[in-house]
Amino acid sequence: MIDNTINDTSRIKDARYLSKVIKADEAAALIPHKSQIGFSGFVGAGSPLYVPIAIANRAQKLHAAGNEYKISIYSGASTDVDLDGILAKANCVEFRTPFNTDPSMRGRINSGETRYLDVHLSSLAWQVECGYFGDMDFAVIEISGITEDGKLIPTTSVGNNQAWLNAAKKVILELNINQPKELEGFHDIYVQAKPPFREPIPLKTARDRIGTPYMSVDFDKVVAVVLSSTDDRLNSFTPLDEVSIAIGDNVAKFFAAEEAAGRLPKGKLLPLQSGIGNVANAVLAALSKAGYKGLECYSEVIQDGMLDLVKDGTVDLASASALSLSPTAVEEFRKNVDFYKEHIILRPQEISNSPELVRRLGVVAMNGMLEADIYGNINSTNVMGTQMMNGIGGSGDFARNGYLSLFLTPSVAKGGAISAIVPFVSHIDHTEHDTMVVVTEYGYADLRGCSPRQRAQKMIAIAHPDYRDMLQDYFDRACAQPKPGHTPHILSEALSWHDRFNKTGSMKK
Amino acid sequence: MIDNTINDTSRIKDARYLSKVIKADEAAALIPHKSQIGFSGFVGAGSPLYVPIAIANRAQKLHAAGNEYKISIYSGASTDVDLDGILAKANCVEFRTPFNTDPSMRGRINSGETRYLDVHLSSLAWQVECGYFGDMDFAVIEISGITEDGKLIPTTSVGNNQAWLNAAKKVILELNINQPKELEGFHDIYVQAKPPFREPIPLKTARDRIGTPYMSVDFDKVVAVVLSSTDDRLNSFTPLDEVSIAIGDNVAKFFAAEEAAGRLPKGKLLPLQSGIGNVANAVLAALSKAGYKGLECYSEVIQDGMLDLVKDGTVDLASASALSLSPTAVEEFRKNVDFYKEHIILRPQEISNSPELVRRLGVVAMNGMLEADIYGNINSTNVMGTQMMNGIGGSGDFARNGYLSLFLTPSVAKGGAISAIVPFVSHIDHTEHDTMVVVTEYGYADLRGCSPRQRAQKMIAIAHPDYRDMLQDYFDRACAQPKPGHTPHILSEALSWHDRFNKTGSMKK
Repeated sequence: MIDNTINDTSRIKDARYLSKVIKADEAAALIPHKSQIGFSGFVGAGSPLYVPIAIANRAQKLHAAGNEYKISIYSGASTDVDLDGILAKANCVEFRTPFNTDPSMRGRINSGETRYLDVHLSSLAWQVECGYFGDMDFAVIEISGITEDGKLIPTTSVGNNQAWLNAAKKVILELNINQPKELEGFHDIYVQAKPPFREPIPLKTARDRIGTPYMSVDFDKVVAVVLSSTDDRLNSFTPLDEVSIAIGDNVAKFFAAEEAAGRLPKGKLLPLQSGIGNVANAVLAALSKAGYKGLECYSEVIQDGMLDLVKDGTVDLASASALSLSPTAVEEFRKNVDFYKEHIILRPQEISNSPELVRRLGVVAMNGMLEADIYGNINSTNVMGTQMMNGIGGSGDFARNGYLSLFLTPSVAKGGAISAIVPFVSHIDHTEHDTMVVVTEYGYADLRGCSPRQRAQKMIAIAHPDYRDMLQDYFDRACAQPKPGHTPHILSEALSWHDRFNKTGSMKK
Repeated sequence: MIDNTINDTSRIKDARYLSKVIKADEAAALIPHKSQIGFSGFVGAGSPLYVPIAIANRAQKLHAAGNEYKISIYSGASTDVDLDGILAKANCVEFRTPFNTDPSMRGRINSGETRYLDVHLSSLAWQVECGYFGDMDFAVIEISGITEDGKLIPTTSVGNNQAWLNAAKKVILELNINQPKELEGFHDIYVQAKPPFREPIPLKTARDRIGTPYMSVDFDKVVAVVLSSTDDRLNSFTPLDEVSIAIGDNVAKFFAAEEAAGRLPKGKLLPLQSGIGNVANAVLAALSKAGYKGLECYSEVIQDGMLDLVKDGTVDLASASALSLSPTAVEEFRKNVDFYKEHIILRPQEISNSPELVRRLGVVAMNGMLEADIYGNINSTNVMGTQMMNGIGGSGDFARNGYLSLFLTPSVAKGGAISAIVPFVSHIDHTEHDTMVVVTEYGYADLRGCSPRQRAQKMIAIAHPDYRDMLQDYFDRACAQPKPGHTPHILSEALSWHDRFNKTGSMKK
């Protein structure tokens, strides 16, 4: 996968960096056992690829020779398969944070071979900078060019790149000559100080630019510039299925009701955050179908669905930390890059996910989940309470601070064997205090102002019909306990649905 | 309890208000069945008392005559017993939010007679203002005076007072002539706009004043001024017990280690938030003992412990939303009110608990809890998963956004029958993503950077010795499951400790 013949240094405008150009395997050789590394990469976009592959190769050789070799990986969010996947397969990852979607890495995490830390995406950078995890030894950051005055041009994601450049003792730059030159100018890099020196973040609308288009680095820390030519991990775009379309339509219905009640600006909404994947794309499609124009998004990731909406005018401004597109969308993006530059801003995840800004802007947060319980607690991460899926990502940053927080899910999974609404969630990532609205293909449960008993009835009403009687039966019997309390439960049964699934393959009795 | 002979109007400097002066029962008669009422009051401080008593009297008469009469109560936080207690006893509360410590009201909540909504203290005001709970019919606010230009002087708490004055259709002011006149000038009232018009909150240090010392009200909305003379609910100060002292010492040890590691400014720490009660007082005492001087607090409540530290110079500046003192401390406060005015600022809870400000200032958050599980999830509210204690209060505002988030608890309750460290918490208010450090009298568990398996070992080490083997046994068997996963659990046993307590009166086998 590494092409060692690449020697185009034309994007290095600061000649000092020419002397730092080396091959990927030479760069990897600089990284000792037990190194803590901050990689670029956010939802598959903007990951370095040559250096991680070279690290994996090195690890395998060292392991074969009987030597230990493990690293710790800090990223923006999920990376390309050639980063997480290949390093997990080489079994050289001691520690991983904050988010992963790669199946091989997931396997290492769930077996306990790789220690994984699941942390809010807005928090990791400052926690690293404040020294909570020890020293960061290396930053390995993909860039698309170096300016005459030594500034770095980011690629398709910003993530924690500037934070890693600041925190790391040594820096390896992977200059990807395949990333469009036109990416220059999309980014808005803003850096916060550490307490007690933090200032208000001077952003008042989703479209404000408050920083510079470039990343900066201390030249003396740069130990390597590796030339590469790679594509981002390309997401395939799945056509919307009926269930996703119904969920999207229910979200649009909810927004219409909020507008009618005077709780959302008519036809404008408030800045939208939407998660990733099919359901998120369906929501955006539903908003386009409903005739919205000129919306703003203040989100983490721009995927195909949002690019379509920018193109057709539904969305006028999309702010995010990454551009994660399918091959078709990449082609469209490259063709009309000047148009998109007017409508897209890429920011550090400390800013895209900032609690301060999410609350100030009044972001409407929409996130997927694994399961919810009848009282509105949400499990976003651990399947059956134990098996890590991807991590909490930015869902907590947005759900806690959003003007509205919606959680969206198909009512069942695994062909109906798993209900997304259960008596008691097997893991909690978002508490009842942060869940305002839950949406399935059967409708929306508006939990605002509801006591737990009221919430239960609304949640049961949007569960899959196959599970409604079971849920109602549990709730009724919980309420009939001698001391039912504020949050009625039968503790000996609360997790029995998950236990049954583990034992029989279905939550159904 | 109501003294109808009070007729001292000397604190009403704006003569227009004189015509609004009526008796408490006349004011209560203005409040129809099903009214939604925003009361002042925060941790027992600054509650109106005459009007609530009159409402309770009215409700009882109406009920006796066979009429329905229920109201909904919105407050700052917990109120005086003569507000929550007396209204709960009169069984006239349909809905209560956001926080309660009164046993009678707790009983109504747990029986389901009163619907209760448990929401972050920083969030309630804007959610009311944005119309999430329908119209607010009345604000009933304690004041200590009215200025010549019709501004209102707050008393011992700010809470949501200004928000209720803004949101309510009608306003009843309870002018308490027993509150010290010298309270004028302690407060800093700052109001945020609703999205999309919110601005950065211009506060950069705990000591900044960004608003005005007075509350404002639309004169035409004021339907009554009720003269009263009452004391705040007076907290008795309990001498520190050995367990609390040990917890306080462990917190001081942790801070010393953080200073040594360069993660906290030496001798200065960062602005402290501490919860209420005995453990919080013990922590403050431990900091004084450790020789700290000139500390800043950015917290919710100033209790006796903090007042002592202001007096002895350990704390130079205490910012909070309420002054909740014992009778002895009230005396001391009144005697040296000019001194304290230099060192104390009272703010709206949207500001004292603001996620934006808590993160900006780098607040060190210290909160009590009911129980934690071996992976660091925290239950702050529901005893045995079902019985509401007080509510989440501001713990989520601080724990989520703090520079450090500590949770403090004695290792056992009910004479050892309940372990504060359990396999799986029976309710989750703070997730593993927000818990950094858990402290008991046996030490502190620093969970930062730890995977769940590592966290479990640290949590077991600070559990009560009587429960350590049981916890270790659970954890070991969970790890030995066929697919233990990232967060090992035995689902059929996870809540068995609570179930056993319910059935046998002890978590012990």
